[in-house]
Amino acid sequence: MSRLVMKFGGTSVADLERIRRVARLVAAEVDAGREVAVVVSAMAGRTNELVAWTDGAGAAAAGVPSSDDEYDVVVASGEQVSAGLLAMTLRNMGYFARSWLAWQIPIVTDDAHGRARIQEVSPDKLLAAMAKGEIPIIAGFQGIDQDGRLSTLGRGAGDLSAVAVAAALRPAVCNIYTDVDGVYTTDPRIEERARRLERISYEEMLEMASLGAKVLQSRSVELAMAQRVPLRVLSSFVEPGEDQGQGTIVCDEEEIVEKRIVSGVAYSRDEAKISLFGLPDHPGVSSQIFSRLADANLNVDMIVQSRARHGDSANMEFTVGKRDAARAIEIVRAAQAEIGFEDMAVNEDVSKVSVIGVGMRSHAGVAKTMFGALAERGVNIQVISTSEIKISVLIDAAYTELAVRALHAAYGLDQI
Amino acid sequence: MSRLVMKFGGTSVADLERIRRVARLVAAEVDAGREVAVVVSAMAGRTNELVAWTDGAGAAAAGVPSSDDEYDVVVASGEQVSAGLLAMTLRNMGYFARSWLAWQIPIVTDDAHGRARIQEVSPDKLLAAMAKGEIPIIAGFQGIDQDGRLSTLGRGAGDLSAVAVAAALRPAVCNIYTDVDGVYTTDPRIEERARRLERISYEEMLEMASLGAKVLQSRSVELAMAQRVPLRVLSSFVEPGEDQGQGTIVCDEEEIVEKRIVSGVAYSRDEAKISLFGLPDHPGVSSQIFSRLADANLNVDMIVQSRARHGDSANMEFTVGKRDAARAIEIVRAAQAEIGFEDMAVNEDVSKVSVIGVGMRSHAGVAKTMFGALAERGVNIQVISTSEIKISVLIDAAYTELAVRALHAAYGLDQI
Repeated sequence: MSRLVMKFGGTSVADLERIRRVARLVAAEVDAGREVAVVVSAMAGRTNELVAWTDGAGAAAAGVPSSDDEYDVVVASGEQVSAGLLAMTLRNMGYFARSWLAWQIPIVTDDAHGRARIQEVSPDKLLAAMAKGEIPIIAGFQGIDQDGRLSTLGRGAGDLSAVAVAAALRPAVCNIYTDVDGVYTTDPRIEERARRLERISYEEMLEMASLGAKVLQSRSVELAMAQRVPLRVLSSFVEPGEDQGQGTIVCDEEEIVEKRIVSGVAYSRDEAKISLFGLPDHPGVSSQIFSRLADANLNVDMIVQSRARHGDSANMEFTVGKRDAARAIEIVRAAQAEIGFEDMAVNEDVSKVSVIGVGMRSHAGVAKTMFGALAERGVNIQVISTSEIKISVLIDAAYTELAVRALHAAYGLDQI
Repeated sequence: MSRLVMKFGGTSVADLERIRRVARLVAAEVDAGREVAVVVSAMAGRTNELVAWTDGAGAAAAGVPSSDDEYDVVVASGEQVSAGLLAMTLRNMGYFARSWLAWQIPIVTDDAHGRARIQEVSPDKLLAAMAKGEIPIIAGFQGIDQDGRLSTLGRGAGDLSAVAVAAALRPAVCNIYTDVDGVYTTDPRIEERARRLERISYEEMLEMASLGAKVLQSRSVELAMAQRVPLRVLSSFVEPGEDQGQGTIVCDEEEIVEKRIVSGVAYSRDEAKISLFGLPDHPGVSSQIFSRLADANLNVDMIVQSRARHGDSANMEFTVGKRDAARAIEIVRAAQAEIGFEDMAVNEDVSKVSVIGVGMRSHAGVAKTMFGALAERGVNIQVISTSEIKISVLIDAAYTELAVRALHAAYGLDQI
């Protein structure tokens, strides 16, 4: 009997009506003879409400432990509610479902409250329950640390719970139900000719997720890749039996027969560019800057260093997430004397556009096509960064949609 | 060091502002050198919302287990939230509080989900935490059964959790904070001359609670009496240091020096009277009726049987809770042939007024005063029932306030 883990996000269980639709999707898989476990997020809006309350309760004063552990106690309650309600709804339909909270399984994590990492998912109790014909409904997003305190995995980590459960119940496929019906060549809100991909490799999906495509959370793709858990992204906004296509399968590169050079175009408006002018042109300068940012836990994304037009000084440009920009500026400014730059500028009006594809490894000319297509539309490239399977450019935010559509066409993504 | 369990109900923790006031009350007791554990209910309105969702999810279909266990999973989440928020708020004030969920302590119950009975509260972990200077914030209302599933104790059972915790942490006093500042001789909304009682015996409090005074839940008073846990009822709507009086102490009869004959007047509008006319006057008739109602788990309160004016048949009148009336009628009507009554009538327009006092045991004339005061105001008594320490009468609901005020004056309760 094939084993299936079905994951439903917050919008899929936002109210009782949607929970009933989810229950019908689960029932259809059970009726088709599959052994099913379900992972659910909190009802949409619920986690935000709980987080707002914890914000209102305030940070811990000096001399007492941080409140991150209690944040987890409050916020983890959301998944408890949706798991119980889905179990009830399935029983109402005559199926024997049962809710499982993380501590009951257990799903053990480290004690980094609010952003805990899963250490182990014990499969024994879940497998025993499934062997008796029960459908386990697992509260996602939560875990339990070594001291028996509740933990949570960080926002959006319900997918991660599902992948970890699927890995523990191996061999199992993990279906992630969202409000879109798969992974697209680009954002269909920008390019209506965007096409749903039948298959995408873990590596490409990982780049897509970290480059702004919101379909799957990066950490869950990483885990699926490491544990070789087959993922499928599907829509939960359909009825069982409706033609919903097959969603998108995320799998090993080897399982994709027809390889494309480029699989998708992603974009992110969540970047801020910081420029430092008139830096001394000697070794150790970049280390001066970036070690300070790393110490403050700030992720730097793109970096480019260039010689200034006149004299022997250098310029440096780098990007950070928009919400980290203020802190990054503060840190760099405080060290102006030691670093020795003359001037500084910040530009939040930028966006990052990327093309992704495992085919780049073996095909030259991908960058040439990209730069050509952008130049043709008059899009100025500010910063470039590349990896083995992606090329990203930073551009003026106003050109985002134009650039996305130009690249989508340039790689023929509307014809796959 | 004296040990104190503080219990705060839903209205006391209804929002962050009120949670902060509760935190100040807790901090004041800690500052005064007391070893404190706290028990909290869900934020007001929360449990109703959660229960409404479980209603919407529906009852289990035939062939699968009832959903009572999942009801508990959903509903128990409310106390988890308020416990975490109060712990955070205290840490924000510089106190080291920590939330405890029932399964972490554990508070073990039977598996009667939705109305579970506490079997054991393990004191060890709580005592160890308190010895380290932690303030445990315990999620009330919830427990865990032998199989490790969540359970809940029934609506309003947060007080019960607090008394059980206080019994486990003995010797400990249990302060119940509510939206009133103590137990009154009667409902101050009806009789403005109602006086706060300084002390009341467990027995009297138990009668008050089951006769309609909403201050404390009967089961918690029963448990406090059985375990000899001293209770104090106080208002949570004060600031520490404000003159809030001393609330009302609920204790052993022997600890009350100045004994009153009557301590209070209670009333309940939650009664329905069912009358059966023309019953055969032979043994076994009442058993015919009441065994059927007992089998259906319906509580019958007052019962009176009388000979009919003409002939040799009898009439029977009894009361049930208003929400059980429809089912009681159905059951009795279905058995009309076997029971053999001629006619049936229902009156929901009744109320029960009671006077309560341990002094009745040793004083004659209490009933005479009651019936006299009611007759003087023209209040007709439909049914009478008595116990060792209370007399209840069923009257036309329109006379409720009049009767309460008349009795309050007749026993001089405005002068204690």
